Amino acid sequence: MHENKYPLVSSARDPRFLALRSLQTHQGRFRTGLYIIEGIRHLARAVQHNAPIESVFVDPSVLPNPFGQKLARRLRRSGIPGIRLSHQLYRDLTLAGEPQGIGAVLRQQWTPLLNVGIEPRSLWLAVESIESRGNLGTMIRTAEAAGATGVFILNSDCDPYDPATVRATMGSLFSQKLIWCSPKEFTNWAKSNRVAVVASSPAGLMDYKALRYRFPAVLVIGSEKRGLSAQLLDAADFVVRIPMRGGCDSINAAVASGILLFEMTGQWAF
Amino acid sequence: MHENKYPLVSSARDPRFLALRSLQTHQGRFRTGLYIIEGIRHLARAVQHNAPIESVFVDPSVLPNPFGQKLARRLRRSGIPGIRLSHQLYRDLTLAGEPQGIGAVLRQQWTPLLNVGIEPRSLWLAVESIESRGNLGTMIRTAEAAGATGVFILNSDCDPYDPATVRATMGSLFSQKLIWCSPKEFTNWAKSNRVAVVASSPAGLMDYKALRYRFPAVLVIGSEKRGLSAQLLDAADFVVRIPMRGGCDSINAAVASGILLFEMTGQWAF
Repeated sequence: MHENKYPLVSSARDPRFLALRSLQTHQGRFRTGLYIIEGIRHLARAVQHNAPIESVFVDPSVLPNPFGQKLARRLRRSGIPGIRLSHQLYRDLTLAGEPQGIGAVLRQQWTPLLNVGIEPRSLWLAVESIESRGNLGTMIRTAEAAGATGVFILNSDCDPYDPATVRATMGSLFSQKLIWCSPKEFTNWAKSNRVAVVASSPAGLMDYKALRYRFPAVLVIGSEKRGLSAQLLDAADFVVRIPMRGGCDSINAAVASGILLFEMTGQWAF
Repeated sequence: MHENKYPLVSSARDPRFLALRSLQTHQGRFRTGLYIIEGIRHLARAVQHNAPIESVFVDPSVLPNPFGQKLARRLRRSGIPGIRLSHQLYRDLTLAGEPQGIGAVLRQQWTPLLNVGIEPRSLWLAVESIESRGNLGTMIRTAEAAGATGVFILNSDCDPYDPATVRATMGSLFSQKLIWCSPKEFTNWAKSNRVAVVASSPAGLMDYKALRYRFPAVLVIGSEKRGLSAQLLDAADFVVRIPMRGGCDSINAAVASGILLFEMTGQWAF
């Protein structure tokens, strides 16, 4: 295999391995502006979307897939630096149940608030606070599938580049614009650009299916446990409610996002 | 605290602890027909729905919540047997990040296919195969929230009583009817009871929002990776598709279930 030409790293104290491992922590990612992806699907989508790949790491012993091997060769030939990791070191880096033997370090891409272009018929998702890292990733994946343009992160505790989040996005991270700003900056942006702010809350007066949404719009989702802050609820143009039947008082935040986003963009067609 | 009167178990070899721990395995649950729940919310919902509680286990050192303490007292006074576990043993039993100090052993409740009553305006969920145990739980929770009557499990590898699944149901397990049968029994049941079988597939010809659903209906969801089997696709009266925008080729199975179930029961109102 051609990726054998990458130098081998087999010591857990090797600075190249330590640099990779530091990206598993929020501090390490924040300090460097980098993050890690793992698996053939994620890497193929990163290449497809011209995501900024800084380096790759492979474990040739678990890269049996011909497509994965071809991908590794292609990246090496295009001049991207890389290392081979011993099986154990590779295993330590990934959350995957069945690691695929190829991963990469990418540069984070944040869109500055001032550069967010707004199309008339566009939809955004804004996340105030999400406890579950997997849920945040599923929400980013769902936003893309629904046709959203990007995701606002309104809380510095939410890190879309956390490995568990990246994994759950299934590669949607590369095509969604990500904006990181404060709730105040967000509401100012929405107001000055006439973007309709739609909040979801069990206290909403209007059934989410009863509203004819106007666009551009942004759907704001709050914490699983505490819901939206008063600040964001007050700033919303519409507060909608997903009706709960049975004995349920709530649904999963990613499921709720999917129901609302697909209803909103579904109205483009029907 | 009154739950102090339950006998203390502090050895990992105590048969009472081993009996609890065996319920973490599929074999242990299958052999006994029992399962474990943990946490105040789950237990309160079990009591509310008269779920068959066989015994309780508490860790008084982490049961600080007055509501939880009251619940423990109430269960003890109603004659339900129980044990106190040492902190370490309790910790070994639960998946919770922050264990709440109260759990219970419940009897599984399966509704026989012959006893499934069918209301004219009712909706069911049928799960052919779901790899993620958490996703299955989220689907059961979402089914209840959408107003479904119950969930068909069409594969013996799917265990709604797995601890990770139970946890994700957030207590919806007690109010949804659960039916375990083969795909063949399921399609025979649907046909002979004139229940509309709605399948979801990327290959579906009809946008899920374009269909006026007829009821009673059952939504069939396949595996995250492989989708529905040909057998179930062939048996479907309608095959609908959630349109994928952006570069996505799929969404999370629990999110897809939520989008479809809420569209279907939403049509009851609009």
